[in-house]
Amino acid sequence: MAIVLGPNRYGKAETRVVRVTRNADGNGERDGEVHRIKDVSVTVLLSGAMEDVHLSGDNAAVLPTDSQKNTVFAFAKKHGIATIEDFGLLLARHFVDAQPTITHARVEIHEYAWDRVTGGHSFVRSGGEVRTALVHSDGDGGAESVVSGLRDLAVLNSTGSEFHGFVRDEYTTLPPTDDRVLATTVTARWRHRSTATRDWDASYREARNHLLRAFAETHSLSLQQTLFQMGRRVLDERPELCEVRLALPNRHHFLVDLEPFGMDNDNEVYFAADRPYGLVEGTVLTDDAPDAPSAWT
Amino acid sequence: MAIVLGPNRYGKAETRVVRVTRNADGNGERDGEVHRIKDVSVTVLLSGAMEDVHLSGDNAAVLPTDSQKNTVFAFAKKHGIATIEDFGLLLARHFVDAQPTITHARVEIHEYAWDRVTGGHSFVRSGGEVRTALVHSDGDGGAESVVSGLRDLAVLNSTGSEFHGFVRDEYTTLPPTDDRVLATTVTARWRHRSTATRDWDASYREARNHLLRAFAETHSLSLQQTLFQMGRRVLDERPELCEVRLALPNRHHFLVDLEPFGMDNDNEVYFAADRPYGLVEGTVLTDDAPDAPSAWT
Amino acid sequence: MAIVLGPNRYGKAETRVVRVTRNADGNGERDGEVHRIKDVSVTVLLSGAMEDVHLSGDNAAVLPTDSQKNTVFAFAKKHGIATIEDFGLLLARHFVDAQPTITHARVEIHEYAWDRVTGGHSFVRSGGEVRTALVHSDGDGGAESVVSGLRDLAVLNSTGSEFHGFVRDEYTTLPPTDDRVLATTVTARWRHRSTATRDWDASYREARNHLLRAFAETHSLSLQQTLFQMGRRVLDERPELCEVRLALPNRHHFLVDLEPFGMDNDNEVYFAADRPYGLVEGTVLTDDAPDAPSAWT
Amino acid sequence: MAIVLGPNRYGKAETRVVRVTRNADGNGERDGEVHRIKDVSVTVLLSGAMEDVHLSGDNAAVLPTDSQKNTVFAFAKKHGIATIEDFGLLLARHFVDAQPTITHARVEIHEYAWDRVTGGHSFVRSGGEVRTALVHSDGDGGAESVVSGLRDLAVLNSTGSEFHGFVRDEYTTLPPTDDRVLATTVTARWRHRSTATRDWDASYREARNHLLRAFAETHSLSLQQTLFQMGRRVLDERPELCEVRLALPNRHHFLVDLEPFGMDNDNEVYFAADRPYGLVEGTVLTDDAPDAPSAWT
Repeated sequence: MAIVLGPNRYGKAETRVVRVTRNADGNGERDGEVHRIKDVSVTVLLSGAMEDVHLSGDNAAVLPTDSQKNTVFAFAKKHGIATIEDFGLLLARHFVDAQPTITHARVEIHEYAWDRVTGGHSFVRSGGEVRTALVHSDGDGGAESVVSGLRDLAVLNSTGSEFHGFVRDEYTTLPPTDDRVLATTVTARWRHRSTATRDWDASYREARNHLLRAFAETHSLSLQQTLFQMGRRVLDERPELCEVRLALPNRHHFLVDLEPFGMDNDNEVYFAADRPYGLVEGTVLTDDAPDAPSAWT
Repeated sequence: MAIVLGPNRYGKAETRVVRVTRNADGNGERDGEVHRIKDVSVTVLLSGAMEDVHLSGDNAAVLPTDSQKNTVFAFAKKHGIATIEDFGLLLARHFVDAQPTITHARVEIHEYAWDRVTGGHSFVRSGGEVRTALVHSDGDGGAESVVSGLRDLAVLNSTGSEFHGFVRDEYTTLPPTDDRVLATTVTARWRHRSTATRDWDASYREARNHLLRAFAETHSLSLQQTLFQMGRRVLDERPELCEVRLALPNRHHFLVDLEPFGMDNDNEVYFAADRPYGLVEGTVLTDDAPDAPSAWT
Repeated sequence: MAIVLGPNRYGKAETRVVRVTRNADGNGERDGEVHRIKDVSVTVLLSGAMEDVHLSGDNAAVLPTDSQKNTVFAFAKKHGIATIEDFGLLLARHFVDAQPTITHARVEIHEYAWDRVTGGHSFVRSGGEVRTALVHSDGDGGAESVVSGLRDLAVLNSTGSEFHGFVRDEYTTLPPTDDRVLATTVTARWRHRSTATRDWDASYREARNHLLRAFAETHSLSLQQTLFQMGRRVLDERPELCEVRLALPNRHHFLVDLEPFGMDNDNEVYFAADRPYGLVEGTVLTDDAPDAPSAWT
Repeated sequence: MAIVLGPNRYGKAETRVVRVTRNADGNGERDGEVHRIKDVSVTVLLSGAMEDVHLSGDNAAVLPTDSQKNTVFAFAKKHGIATIEDFGLLLARHFVDAQPTITHARVEIHEYAWDRVTGGHSFVRSGGEVRTALVHSDGDGGAESVVSGLRDLAVLNSTGSEFHGFVRDEYTTLPPTDDRVLATTVTARWRHRSTATRDWDASYREARNHLLRAFAETHSLSLQQTLFQMGRRVLDERPELCEVRLALPNRHHFLVDLEPFGMDNDNEVYFAADRPYGLVEGTVLTDDAPDAPSAWT
């Protein structure tokens, strides 16, 4: 029996870079100029010919994670950050193409949105969801994938949700209901058919919009049904996408029993619980979706 | 030397209640009705004749924290949650007035905002800041105070901030600058002159707005100057308020040195650091502000 | 093009149960009895014939997550919690065997350790790492896997670590070093060859011990080398295990430049940074390890 | 009505410094030497003549927070970190004595403990509580105070706790109990009579020990009673201390109702809830404790 090295990767995680584009309207002077900002956290993970460093500590194939961080900053200057998908592709291709020892790059980027307050250079965090991109690349001309998405999108339907007709075993005490609060914090990721999507911003904006509308418009008999409708709607409407993965925690809102205080509770007062919570994870895809085993790893 | 009991208080913390108002537009039938939701976390702390419970474990003066939680739910049903200031006053007065052993109540409420998605009963968390209220009451007719506020309001000016002319001691290496990013996550609280403020929502909306505008419009020579301008603006514009307290972490955005890569960095690429961070805390008040020693505790 | 349902699973996450074994020494009377406690968080995820619920909201195949939670509590009573591996196997097999619609169960358990203070029933959280178990089961007689592990084990070597001989590209500014602090927060998981490991507690204690010793005793030329040594040591010493996966964030400790203050810094004063951080992930396995594609999902 | 500046302070928060003492046993050569490490997070807040910076942005009185951070690092080198109380006093006095514009310094330090693994320079975080110190100083010869303490010390009694005889109002549904789990996460701070305590480490170790023992040994009729006993024990045993402040969240462990499954639950299976939670805050002091209004701010 021998002990061997299996799959591995390494890189620099969570480099937080804020890129300011000055004179973004092309008209301003320094004093009155209009700025644009992009606020992103970049995680790079590289793989390749890494036997030696694991087995003997020989770093000849290792591009330091510090250099990866520097590259993120330098690329932010040189290329700007048009969208996180573009920026991820630029970075991923660079690492594979520039380093013979690196055969695969994974770049994950989270973007924090800011709204303009007033004037040209004052901003307020818009809160809500974080936009995400996950790019894999084997380098220029090799296999590549782009998964866009979001996390921390909290949504709630205060009616229009039922849950009944489920299995009842010896440990089941839950009563069926035909009117409950349905609340979740959406983590959603959607895979592009190729890297050729032209307008990443429009694609994101519309995918998010369809997720929200499908959640709102689905009269729900189970969170699984809602999940499938959310994925289906995105794929129905966005031909550049071929697969959606969703993780939907069921943020339970329990109807409070007010009878001891002589009150009824006609679905008006809920206790929002933290833990435990239900969790539904699912994939929705088109039957012609190209294979992409590593796109989500 | 004797060992004695000093100041003390107890209560139920972080009861999370979601209150749905059905048929909020007064026109709907059950199916198509329009809902309104309030999502709040309530912390009650009571004080009074608590010697016995501390010294001997005699609970005769103790209203259980479980009953306090129940009261929050029952009041949400009975009175609704018009604003967190109103709800806090109702609860605080109730505990003091209803229990002879309780002489003082402190109720702190945090509110999480939701936006309407579409239709009448689907919502998305708006993210951004949390609205807060801190109410103290000695009961009906006794001393009372209301402090409104917010936390987690992240703001950033990408120019219009300088920092120079400071003390230089033997440990000072910081270069002066006449153009930096100024970013902070605002925690602000403002005290009302009395509990007679009529429109708590308008007061909150305007105070928040003035904070934001003062941050954006102040050409800043120091974060302290910005803090004072923020507090002053609120007091200038809102006569129902008499004191503002601000805690402003200086979320450092360090200009990245790109010279090693043959690039200049004309205030375009910043590293957003986590820790350590600067911290400025200050109070701005009107010189006729009534004394309220316990309003902030 | 059709839109179809892909892989999916659902369940109850983070049910926190504390199980007290009274009279654990077999000698006590009620008053003076010795207790043992197990404090665990259980996450159940089930998969099976779930087309209908996704496509039409028909819940006939769905065991409610509420029932899963109840099962966790009832099993804690009926069977006790000998080890988290045993408890995970019991639960996973139960769900598959009891429900015809469920074909696969995944049970993940985190255990929080407590030390005895004094007397028989007083405890203090020992802090440090969390013990983990991840069990997959296709039911009695079907495929099964057990992965044990830990997370949040923070370790630091204050010398005995070098880093040099790495790739230098145009974005590399890092100087080589032959003496640095090496610090990480270990997440480690190790796969058992089968479910026949007899003494899960001894296996855990020894695996943890070997990880710690390998970290301490490896003169490190790179974090990857340390990672491989940690995995190898565990597999060398524990024949019941066949694969180790490690995720090691490189918690950078930067040597502070004290020259501006007229001081040298002979590796004595470090700034512990939060972000960004290096990240090394790797797998070490025996070449006869049985295939277990789903063991880690 | 004029708008004026009220109380204010500023400084650098959460500077994380790890101080290595090489050759700590005085015998080692470089290779085999024994190290000692101190891992602390330092928050400095200064106050003084800060009108100008607030009102006009004139920084002539402002020692940059960056310089404060540098001072922390330089002092760690020059003086070492014997204890966090000593280090806090050194820093606080320095800022007031060295800067004419600074009249008061507040230094708060949190210490993370590490245990030795094996050999001379390998360590594992011991987890559990964080040790804290809060030092106030008006400078050499002026008023000073030292408050030591801890946070995040989780403790649990699995029996020996009752709760009954409490007030029952119209919102009370809680049944009395004569046997419950009592669990809390202790935040405790204790004030020294003066800065003349000689052995800060022994004082901390003993105070912590007495808190733990009092929690374990008190047959509790209420968490308030336990709180008072914890404070009293520390003051009874440690003459160098004069005041203890405790914040004890009541981490509810609810007995699970297993009757629906045909089981009884003789205090064996508990659900550990997150929120809401009870909260008891109290002060225990000696009747001859010197006044120290600002010691806790």
